[in-house]
Amino acid sequence: MKPIKSITLIGSGNVATHLGLALHNKGYLIKEVYSNTLKNAKILAHQLGAIANNNQSKINHESDLYIVAIKDDAINDFLLHYPFIDKLTVHTSGTTSINTFPELFQNYGVFYPLQTFSKKKKVDFKNIPVCIEANSLENKTLLLKLANSLSTKVYEVDSKQRKALHVAAVFACNFSNYMYSIAAYILQKENIPFNIIEPLIIETAEKIKHGNPKNLQTGPAIRKDEQIITEHLNYLENQPDIKHLYNFISNKIMEQNG
Amino acid sequence: MKPIKSITLIGSGNVATHLGLALHNKGYLIKEVYSNTLKNAKILAHQLGAIANNNQSKINHESDLYIVAIKDDAINDFLLHYPFIDKLTVHTSGTTSINTFPELFQNYGVFYPLQTFSKKKKVDFKNIPVCIEANSLENKTLLLKLANSLSTKVYEVDSKQRKALHVAAVFACNFSNYMYSIAAYILQKENIPFNIIEPLIIETAEKIKHGNPKNLQTGPAIRKDEQIITEHLNYLENQPDIKHLYNFISNKIMEQNG
Repeated sequence: MKPIKSITLIGSGNVATHLGLALHNKGYLIKEVYSNTLKNAKILAHQLGAIANNNQSKINHESDLYIVAIKDDAINDFLLHYPFIDKLTVHTSGTTSINTFPELFQNYGVFYPLQTFSKKKKVDFKNIPVCIEANSLENKTLLLKLANSLSTKVYEVDSKQRKALHVAAVFACNFSNYMYSIAAYILQKENIPFNIIEPLIIETAEKIKHGNPKNLQTGPAIRKDEQIITEHLNYLENQPDIKHLYNFISNKIMEQNG
Repeated sequence: MKPIKSITLIGSGNVATHLGLALHNKGYLIKEVYSNTLKNAKILAHQLGAIANNNQSKINHESDLYIVAIKDDAINDFLLHYPFIDKLTVHTSGTTSINTFPELFQNYGVFYPLQTFSKKKKVDFKNIPVCIEANSLENKTLLLKLANSLSTKVYEVDSKQRKALHVAAVFACNFSNYMYSIAAYILQKENIPFNIIEPLIIETAEKIKHGNPKNLQTGPAIRKDEQIITEHLNYLENQPDIKHLYNFISNKIMEQNG
């Protein structure tokens, strides 16, 4: 079983960028970055000392691992036109099943880093949970070894669990961030600087280390403070969508309180 | 203008507890803790070296400041039966206007610490934004001095702005925490430990230091990855309320993306 040393990266988005940089920094050889858009491939390839390529039929045949880090709904189509069915190939998607690999593939798996990536913001990969799945014990061993070289938090997660994890992550990350956006919008309207609520946001997140968030719920709804809730709904009178969210979520929190 | 040295605390909840401890640790004399429930008054009074009291008519007359840190919808009723209309009295509510103080009051204001407090979780008060409002320049000066002795983040905020701030805080804190709860629920159903998404939650919160959250949005909705969104909605088929939230918020995020 030959260990993974050289890697081809398919994609140049947030996941490809941060994963590529982490692998490069750990001494893996990133041979090539493929992207539909040559410009994007070049930007990332330049950082990784790799070749840039935007021609799928010209992807090199020599890498030990091919990482497909592209938009979820493009994975299937990409794999259908993928020439290296014998080469170890992984995707990095939370929701896409391992069964997305067509039947002829011999060596495949999933390498899902559970984090929110923005190109401009550095991340420390060793704290990022990595979820591994593979079509064989041998491939699983190879991928676990790779994952453990990058992160201290490596999990074996099957496709069903990984989808649940991704749905949970959408709520915990993407939708929390949307809540922050609404807060920013309200503050902006009143000319209040957004950074006044930074300590609150950080503390709310840090609290989850101390127990189930359900038991840490605070605010007017969990206190059933209906006078405040009514005042807040009145305040949001001219923002029907934000008002709907306020009302719906408050009712759900009040139900929790029995 | 006599500086504030002695304080009576009305209330024994999360805000009263953390504010009382912060004041006590800074050397202020907490004379008395009043609560409807003597047991709760005693628990907090014991920590502050104060007298416990549950008889409103027997609240001492000698303190420099009276802090009313009780449930928002109880403030008005409490003040109507409050004997010290000459004494400097503040409430700690985000949404309650300064005009809640009846006309006869002579010295009053608001001391609103913008943070989520749980009794069991320690907080560092010096990082907590404190919003001050008062009925006179003299009282404002006294309250600003008090606030500055506890926190490095003191703001003058009028009642209209403070209400907006509270609505924003409900979204940024209480509703984010509810999103974490949904994530915890989904993970629990699949026997996945909650702490796997801790790094994601912390990173999402930390990111707000780097810009407007609207510009930091990640996830399937901002990418318009409709295949993933459909798979997630199918996954949530048997949780109609969670599914509704997923669908509603995803649509709002997609609108952001133009």
